[in-house]
Amino acid sequence: MGKVFIVGAGPGDPELITLKAYNLIKKANVIIYDRLVPKTLLEDTKAELIYVGKEIGDSKLQDYINELLVEKAKTNSIVVRLKGGDPYVFGRGEEECIYVLSHGIECEVVPGVSSAIAVPAYAGIPVTSRLTNSSSFTVITGTRADNKIIDASYIPREGTLIILMGIHVIEQLERVLLSVRDYEEYVAIIENGTTEKQRVITGRLKDLSKLIIEHKIRPPAIIVVGDVVKLREKLWKLT
Amino acid sequence: MGKVFIVGAGPGDPELITLKAYNLIKKANVIIYDRLVPKTLLEDTKAELIYVGKEIGDSKLQDYINELLVEKAKTNSIVVRLKGGDPYVFGRGEEECIYVLSHGIECEVVPGVSSAIAVPAYAGIPVTSRLTNSSSFTVITGTRADNKIIDASYIPREGTLIILMGIHVIEQLERVLLSVRDYEEYVAIIENGTTEKQRVITGRLKDLSKLIIEHKIRPPAIIVVGDVVKLREKLWKLT
Repeated sequence: MGKVFIVGAGPGDPELITLKAYNLIKKANVIIYDRLVPKTLLEDTKAELIYVGKEIGDSKLQDYINELLVEKAKTNSIVVRLKGGDPYVFGRGEEECIYVLSHGIECEVVPGVSSAIAVPAYAGIPVTSRLTNSSSFTVITGTRADNKIIDASYIPREGTLIILMGIHVIEQLERVLLSVRDYEEYVAIIENGTTEKQRVITGRLKDLSKLIIEHKIRPPAIIVVGDVVKLREKLWKLT
Repeated sequence: MGKVFIVGAGPGDPELITLKAYNLIKKANVIIYDRLVPKTLLEDTKAELIYVGKEIGDSKLQDYINELLVEKAKTNSIVVRLKGGDPYVFGRGEEECIYVLSHGIECEVVPGVSSAIAVPAYAGIPVTSRLTNSSSFTVITGTRADNKIIDASYIPREGTLIILMGIHVIEQLERVLLSVRDYEEYVAIIENGTTEKQRVITGRLKDLSKLIIEHKIRPPAIIVVGDVVKLREKLWKLT
């Protein structure tokens, strides 16, 4: 019986993978990977490669992946499940790991650099800062597990707000945000973050959905709300 | 004139450093590093090593570090500022980077695996999960930039809560938490996370400060509040 590793591949820049993940990719017998995994990472392996590029919320596909992990672990010693970002930040890594463990197969989760933090960083935006009195950050998803829009009880009045998977529900999401946060708060929208195709748009919260529509923003894109966005003027040179 | 890299070293496990950071450590002329950086990472370098292990909130030391980065970049081509976790998660990376850039020196920030996410992961606790309807996570620090205790406006009513640097102010912090969250919520306290000395204590929010005192928890330690703590029972085997 083999072992399954649920591995974070980082936010897009292939160099932002961990040493642990890189070594596992080289040693793996099978790699089951998602849409947002940087393709160059798969060049250094002799593993069988299985693409399971997921659409948001496809539960049949999730059942198939769970079963695939178990089946492959029965006949291979190292099975790597490679996911964009970190497996535990809206990555369903825990569902896969629990399924594997429940079949008596060993499972280990290897954290990765989360897009929620690194994508703003590459756009010159720190998620926390003493300079703007930003003493917290909150990461939310546009739609919850039950496919409802995230509600105001998940959003604090102060601190940086980072929104993943919000583009496709932006008009409803904007209403929720404006019920808690100020109309004049700074926002940044970052498309294809940390990659060569990165695009950054900034503005105010009251114009968020307008900006996304005007600039034809497409997923994957991350939204940042808060005073930390102002620091980009001083830090953008680092990209 | 050289270049300064503000680099995240990850949460403690030396293998959780990124390839980009690992390669920079090997090429660096000077490495200026903090208390929580895994020591084994410094064995693969010929760089001049300067320890600036910081106490929380020592502003004189911060001025000294800023000046040191500029001075070293004047006579060395690659200056690495190595920090535990991620430079932009309560790491003051932006202050150092802005200071360096304002002296006409190039600066680049290299994100790392954040302790806020990876330490819970190694303890069998995902920060988000569909299984517990945990659709967000918030990362706060015990004390804010102005040295006041974090207040309730930074804490949402729902979602996972992760608290860094909270042990030394736990009794005041507990009062703030209980003004927003339920007394019966699950909590985990993780000391020396992702290292061989890792210790995990679980309980309920109403007993948080009592647990920390009883078990003599010392920094570095991370507190997790929310239903995701329950998943540890199913996932702890992965550590």
